[in-house]
Amino acid sequence: MRFTLDGRMVDRPCLWPVEGGIEHIDQRKLPGSTIIERSKTLKEQLEAIRTLSVRGAPALGVFAGLSFAFGLERGSDPNDLKLAILSARPTAVDPRNAVCEVEDAFLISGPKGAMSKALEIMERTISQCRQIGEHGARLVPDGGRVMTHCNAGALATVDWGTALAPIRMKARQGGDPFVWVSETRPLLQGSRLTAWELAQERIRHSLIVDSSSGHLMSQGLVDLVIVGADRVARNGDVVNKIGTYDKAVLARENNVPFYVALPLSTLDADTATGADIVLEERPAEEITDMNGMATAPEISPAFNPAFDMTPHRYITGYVTPRGVLDREGLLELFH
Amino acid sequence: MRFTLDGRMVDRPCLWPVEGGIEHIDQRKLPGSTIIERSKTLKEQLEAIRTLSVRGAPALGVFAGLSFAFGLERGSDPNDLKLAILSARPTAVDPRNAVCEVEDAFLISGPKGAMSKALEIMERTISQCRQIGEHGARLVPDGGRVMTHCNAGALATVDWGTALAPIRMKARQGGDPFVWVSETRPLLQGSRLTAWELAQERIRHSLIVDSSSGHLMSQGLVDLVIVGADRVARNGDVVNKIGTYDKAVLARENNVPFYVALPLSTLDADTATGADIVLEERPAEEITDMNGMATAPEISPAFNPAFDMTPHRYITGYVTPRGVLDREGLLELFH
Repeated sequence: MRFTLDGRMVDRPCLWPVEGGIEHIDQRKLPGSTIIERSKTLKEQLEAIRTLSVRGAPALGVFAGLSFAFGLERGSDPNDLKLAILSARPTAVDPRNAVCEVEDAFLISGPKGAMSKALEIMERTISQCRQIGEHGARLVPDGGRVMTHCNAGALATVDWGTALAPIRMKARQGGDPFVWVSETRPLLQGSRLTAWELAQERIRHSLIVDSSSGHLMSQGLVDLVIVGADRVARNGDVVNKIGTYDKAVLARENNVPFYVALPLSTLDADTATGADIVLEERPAEEITDMNGMATAPEISPAFNPAFDMTPHRYITGYVTPRGVLDREGLLELFH
Repeated sequence: MRFTLDGRMVDRPCLWPVEGGIEHIDQRKLPGSTIIERSKTLKEQLEAIRTLSVRGAPALGVFAGLSFAFGLERGSDPNDLKLAILSARPTAVDPRNAVCEVEDAFLISGPKGAMSKALEIMERTISQCRQIGEHGARLVPDGGRVMTHCNAGALATVDWGTALAPIRMKARQGGDPFVWVSETRPLLQGSRLTAWELAQERIRHSLIVDSSSGHLMSQGLVDLVIVGADRVARNGDVVNKIGTYDKAVLARENNVPFYVALPLSTLDADTATGADIVLEERPAEEITDMNGMATAPEISPAFNPAFDMTPHRYITGYVTPRGVLDREGLLELFH
């Protein structure tokens, strides 16, 4: 990811290991300030996870793997470490997978093996996202107008992104894509994070409120939609940020292709259909409080599901490290 | 409308004439404070219109008619008055209609006739909204869950509301309705105004982000949708707050009935189809600034259409003062 740091343009992931610890871009401070946080102790690393200073399932997986490996290097107890790291944000599946892989390596070849496995997971995550970019860029016409939702960018995945990878790749190929950035209430990951990533690389874009998606599609202003995924069930149903389902239905109604971009770690072989996935509900205050001001009467409750489920019938294709696949192709990845 | 004023419950419109002027609830201060503004001079009245202290097309029409009549009572020049009032918010059609009616009365029977016409317009607006409530309440099952968007309530229409009238009436009949209040980005008229009206009358409701509409419908949590309208074309197409079209498409996809509530003044006989209506675009800052804080990078532009157009084929029925009509019935109202 290219971004400006201390006045000069750098090209690096949004988190990376340094001597005895991890550095990462503090996502809470964006878009106002680009602050690099360094966490050396386990306590600092857990704090970064808990406070959403690092967020995005693949990025959390890499961060958890590195935190675990650094802890093992310091001689901490593996079980204590594991428990602490996995309970910091218990719902994401990527940290669990990463920590298990690092633990296996530790059992075979000690702290050194653990660290090289953690670095391998990081490299693999980056490389899968880059592959998503290569395959997905072919879907974007020159000057094409892509709509996305939430942040499925480098910040969420260490580098490149999932939904943003095809756009970033297209831009680097000189294809001049344009992005409709859906702001993504309540936490505004679209406005705060996706717009920041695009602004850093000077990729053309415009913010919109989430509910103008259908209007833009009906006016012929959208060539395709690409979103990320939090979990993909064994039948191809997709769970992603609330609002994804709305866009999928509106895209089909307006004959706009709708793609889901995902690394292989997002496939959930243990879940038969999207309807089996329990969707997280988050605090009402995310909706009723805005920058410290109440936006609604004090007695008004709010219902805040963080995710929704998009049935596979609305999905034109899946952009994966193995190529752009139809449903049949996707289902083969589970075997 | 019932609301708490200075510690006690009152039942009155949200604007009303007083000795030499107009009092109204300042909509900019809601939901935090219920402040009654009194405007006696033309300057104060224009300021109230311009700053959105009074908003909502039918409410603006009544306010404009009263402002005009008070000006005529003070002996001001009719043409100067008319020009000043109609240029305060030039796009709304209701102020134009109201001022023309009051002017006709003035020409026949002077300032007294003008004032009684202004009061008649106010009574007529309230009574049409009440009729919308009576007809529409029959659509709402006991304990029924109604989704709405923006504020088409008493605040926007002097009393009762359009979309909120059936809900308010159902509640007064003891039918215990429940309302999903879509917050309505960017200006949050749902959270700030609709939730306030419902909270005042202790009608059960819950706020949601706009993009969770489809999820709620797909989960069987919505019995019907009722929205207001800013303009209805001669073929039944409806222009309303951005996000209305999304809800209409999602409702049809999920077999949820979708109704539009409107007074007769919203019918636009001069426009053949919704596609002929030019939709207002508003400033980008409504999206990129939130309570004084930038939510996006400074260089990120935003596209902010204030309205969208819902083709008649998505609309189950029209809730009017003449009854709940299908498209054919609606089209007869134009004759």
